[in-house]
Amino acid sequence: MKKTAKIPYAAIERLALYSRPLRVLLKNGITVISSEKLAEYCGVNPAQVRKDLAYFGEFGVRGVGYDVTDLLREIKSILATDRDWTLCIIGMGNLGNAIVENENFRNMGYRFVAAFDKDQEKHGKTLPCGLIIQPVEKLRHLVKLLNVQIGVITTPPDEAQRVTDLLVDAGVKGVLNFSPTQVKAPKGCVIENVDFAVRFENLAYHLSKVPRE
Amino acid sequence: MKKTAKIPYAAIERLALYSRPLRVLLKNGITVISSEKLAEYCGVNPAQVRKDLAYFGEFGVRGVGYDVTDLLREIKSILATDRDWTLCIIGMGNLGNAIVENENFRNMGYRFVAAFDKDQEKHGKTLPCGLIIQPVEKLRHLVKLLNVQIGVITTPPDEAQRVTDLLVDAGVKGVLNFSPTQVKAPKGCVIENVDFAVRFENLAYHLSKVPRE
Repeated sequence: MKKTAKIPYAAIERLALYSRPLRVLLKNGITVISSEKLAEYCGVNPAQVRKDLAYFGEFGVRGVGYDVTDLLREIKSILATDRDWTLCIIGMGNLGNAIVENENFRNMGYRFVAAFDKDQEKHGKTLPCGLIIQPVEKLRHLVKLLNVQIGVITTPPDEAQRVTDLLVDAGVKGVLNFSPTQVKAPKGCVIENVDFAVRFENLAYHLSKVPRE
Repeated sequence: MKKTAKIPYAAIERLALYSRPLRVLLKNGITVISSEKLAEYCGVNPAQVRKDLAYFGEFGVRGVGYDVTDLLREIKSILATDRDWTLCIIGMGNLGNAIVENENFRNMGYRFVAAFDKDQEKHGKTLPCGLIIQPVEKLRHLVKLLNVQIGVITTPPDEAQRVTDLLVDAGVKGVLNFSPTQVKAPKGCVIENVDFAVRFENLAYHLSKVPRE
């Protein structure tokens, strides 16, 4: 594998996308795929696929295509999704429930081991996935006990930074923040701010460019 | 405003991000902001802010900064979020509920006017936002009646393409697909596939690069 130091962020995102059809192909027993076909499945252009994969070394055979098993294994290794990750989630509203119960995430190796909420009425409630909602006061203890690597924040925005600080203080090294505010953490903790509304705005932008009938 | 034909997709995403602190500043009566400060709020570098904003014309005054009101108005106009959009949503599980009840979206002008599910047991149920869950069979009729512009899909993945086809057939011009599969539509309908798992994978990638203690 080549050095991965200067891979653009967008290429990492696309690698994750490429892995989707590859998983399906593998399940269906298909062993080789062309860059054209992979590009079509993912809605990008074939030159982009070839360029992205070239960052990571030589996978394909010209005129034949990529070996599905090899390519998927390599992408999973690059993305570090060839291992299980241990997660906790804070904020058990609709979005928190949607994420913690998502089978797709589970199949990809994201294991939720603790769920927290500040609402007393929710404490002790068992979720369909089997987790019991815990008070936020127990976060530090449980994060350490269960070796939580990633914290997922689905609280209202005004609580997100405080929860981030709690997570960092407890030793979590990665935070996925779904609340509509940017949170910050000291160096050594990776933050990924996921802002849904941006996708609405993107769509609105593109729609406003579509000629009206 | 300059021609907006060749603005990179990523710049559009960042414009949406820039609008977040601007809204807060405006509410707090702050009228001028430097590119450095705006960049800091959004976690990007100041040169990137200046470059992105330059795509759309001259906003700033060197050494002073940007007028918050002007800049926000211009960004909203570019992103077409200076108007209301009419949306429907299909798939009233946890994620569907999280989206339809999100006050943040409502404040930004995204108005949900219909909610659908294929589960008979949910039909007729009133959501906290006031909408009544309708059978998918009524989609075509209601989309036309209520002038729905955007369809939001929160169904399981194996239903997403069929629902997209229904939406396109009913005349919807934009689809925001939250189910973990890529959907396709004919030209003239804009699709935005939102894949949550990609954000988990991004984080895993970056975490795997953090030196362990």
